[in-house]
Amino acid sequence: MELLKQRIIKDAIVRGGNVLKVDSFLNHQLDISLLNEIGKEFYKLFGDLNITRIFTIEASGIAIASIAAQYFNVPVVFAKKAFSKNLEGEILKSPVTSFTKGTSYDVMVEAKFLHTDDRILIIDDFLAKGSALLALADIVKQSGATLSGAGIVIEKGFQEGGKLVRSEGINLKSLAVIKSMDEGKIVFSE
Amino acid sequence: MELLKQRIIKDAIVRGGNVLKVDSFLNHQLDISLLNEIGKEFYKLFGDLNITRIFTIEASGIAIASIAAQYFNVPVVFAKKAFSKNLEGEILKSPVTSFTKGTSYDVMVEAKFLHTDDRILIIDDFLAKGSALLALADIVKQSGATLSGAGIVIEKGFQEGGKLVRSEGINLKSLAVIKSMDEGKIVFSE
Repeated sequence: MELLKQRIIKDAIVRGGNVLKVDSFLNHQLDISLLNEIGKEFYKLFGDLNITRIFTIEASGIAIASIAAQYFNVPVVFAKKAFSKNLEGEILKSPVTSFTKGTSYDVMVEAKFLHTDDRILIIDDFLAKGSALLALADIVKQSGATLSGAGIVIEKGFQEGGKLVRSEGINLKSLAVIKSMDEGKIVFSE
Repeated sequence: MELLKQRIIKDAIVRGGNVLKVDSFLNHQLDISLLNEIGKEFYKLFGDLNITRIFTIEASGIAIASIAAQYFNVPVVFAKKAFSKNLEGEILKSPVTSFTKGTSYDVMVEAKFLHTDDRILIIDDFLAKGSALLALADIVKQSGATLSGAGIVIEKGFQEGGKLVRSEGINLKSLAVIKSMDEGKIVFSE
């Protein structure tokens, strides 16, 4: 997605330890106009799959999924990273290791929000080692719903997540795939 | 907001300890059509204030703020509840006590995303004891920006938050104010 790549080149900041900061437009401050273009692009890629529900994970995925959901005309369900009094009934969960926070946790969703006849599109901001996406896919599998696709805004192509997720047979599409960002220079895969 | 009140009556569940579960449409599964109507209503209430930025708090506020931001044509900034490697530079923070999670934490935002010439609209899903909203207002004050308004989807009018926030002179407007929910019966204020 050319507009997105241009924005990454213009505003993303490369930090040590393979950290790519896009917090001026994607995950702390949110450029809603850009998110609309991202939503349209996801609809171009997955719009013919009769998606019934978009599934994401708090917090950064929520804005992207919600704006995109307007094009699919479906509800969003977001998985939670911490237990709260508000979670009740049957809970589906799967473990995740966070790359940016250096912690492990279960992602959780109330089972009643994913149905066996759902065709689910997972949406998230980043794919690096793939832990969060594989946990979401595992939850979809537990629910009995069909995982129709996974749309990622930025894939770090030099990390193993994309390969792992595709080897599971998941219909993964990333809007920008970064091949390398050595010495702060961002190079995209074609 | 009549549509919202009808939806609360239809789908919200009252639990002990003053918990109102609206997770089938507002903060776990998200009804994006309803969020669009909520966004339009916030624009009716605050659209003449030349808002330059919408400020909210992860996680439940993000979807509501992002959909609403389309009507205001402004970016969203969301405060974070946990420190991450991605937070850097000058950080503004303020303490919050969570009613649903029974914990205390600092909400944090990178200072560079709130400017002294901003006119800020805070948006959040719930107002109960007011701790989160007062923390966000405190951060806006620290930033030097102007707090033009605060839009809340559901105010628990029987708790002290609304009174506290209004006594601070904040331009607070709530789309549905619940007067009581004794024995599971939800009654709205006029």
